[in-house]
Amino acid sequence: TIVMAVEDFFRGQDTAKALTGKRVLITAGPTREAIDPVRYLTNRSSGKMGYVLAEAAVEAGASVTLVSGPTALPSPQGVQRVNVTTAEEMYDAVMGRLNEADIIIKSAAVADYQPENVATQKLKKVGKEMVLRLVRTKDIAADIGKRKEGQFFVGFAAETENVAEHAREKLARKGMDLIVANDVSTPGAGFDGDMNTVRVYDGEGEVLHLPLVSKKEVARRIVDLISERWTGK
Amino acid sequence: TIVMAVEDFFRGQDTAKALTGKRVLITAGPTREAIDPVRYLTNRSSGKMGYVLAEAAVEAGASVTLVSGPTALPSPQGVQRVNVTTAEEMYDAVMGRLNEADIIIKSAAVADYQPENVATQKLKKVGKEMVLRLVRTKDIAADIGKRKEGQFFVGFAAETENVAEHAREKLARKGMDLIVANDVSTPGAGFDGDMNTVRVYDGEGEVLHLPLVSKKEVARRIVDLISERWTGK
Repeated sequence: TIVMAVEDFFRGQDTAKALTGKRVLITAGPTREAIDPVRYLTNRSSGKMGYVLAEAAVEAGASVTLVSGPTALPSPQGVQRVNVTTAEEMYDAVMGRLNEADIIIKSAAVADYQPENVATQKLKKVGKEMVLRLVRTKDIAADIGKRKEGQFFVGFAAETENVAEHAREKLARKGMDLIVANDVSTPGAGFDGDMNTVRVYDGEGEVLHLPLVSKKEVARRIVDLISERWTGK
Repeated sequence: TIVMAVEDFFRGQDTAKALTGKRVLITAGPTREAIDPVRYLTNRSSGKMGYVLAEAAVEAGASVTLVSGPTALPSPQGVQRVNVTTAEEMYDAVMGRLNEADIIIKSAAVADYQPENVATQKLKKVGKEMVLRLVRTKDIAADIGKRKEGQFFVGFAAETENVAEHAREKLARKGMDLIVANDVSTPGAGFDGDMNTVRVYDGEGEVLHLPLVSKKEVARRIVDLISERWTGK
């Protein structure tokens, strides 16, 4: 609509320079953990939230690197995109770029577990049952929290129950400055959709609550919040 | 090129009526087997081969139903598409339409195993290791083989080793009339690509070998072969 276009225009004016010269590292999408050359473990992340965050950060003047797991999405304009597949590849891509970032937004849904062994040939069906042994992947968020030196760190929590409690505990444990929590079991919110419902927390408590709005609007509000709070590396 | 367009035109003329009035049931894509509301098991099938087979069957005059797992592909024109997610949903969608089909092409890469239990809430990371217990899914191909009454049944075998041996054994065991085998470890062939290398077998042996050609060409040649061999339900 015209009203939305005008709002977009003025918003663009307001925040155009808020992140000028800042380097933002964003992770997005799922990871895939191979079981064999054909089968893999993954999750329902579409990558949309991370991609619109990258767009919003570019609009706010930032220099943006997007480390992305496999998605069907086109690269946002003006973004440097780094494609990865596995949790380990994402870990390496992020850790190798940590020192170059002023702001880190970890929106990717990285696998927590990967198969203990990856078969080099396609597994044949043998038994009625199969046991898949999984081991923990490296914890990207926790290691960002430990290694960061002044970077502003924003994480995400996709939960299906006790959302606020899980999110606040995760923020504290992983050294995040802000955490964006969403209840992915809310109809119409999260994953494949274009809408989202989020609550944002800092160490003190809830700082933003967005009821069902577009992911683009969520992204702009989060970038606004980061711009307000970022006080220099 | 003009030559290809002319070839396409004449090919269209040649096979236009070969499957007129025939009802073709095609399965395509991967399935997803939920571990919890967020995580799932799947495989690398893009669905492309099944979708171009659906196109080729429509071009040959058939009435086509495409039972598709989750893909990023648009529906081919003139095809009735049925979307499914899990192996069990695909089983039900196929079995419920078996009697209405003259020809069945099972190109979907259906999960062989699904988690024994599906968690209703997102699993929290607790241990260093996790054991995922899997149980066999219902065998769609085997049950088509058992229940078919005159339908012409074409299956697929995506293998990474001993391709011919695995494919011919699968054809015999599942009551297929033809099996299309491809070595998905061949560079440039299978899964995400637009090219494929296939060998087609019947009960007697190899009946067609297509070196690296487009999936569209593979589809046309398979439809031609079906048209030649189908002798009525």
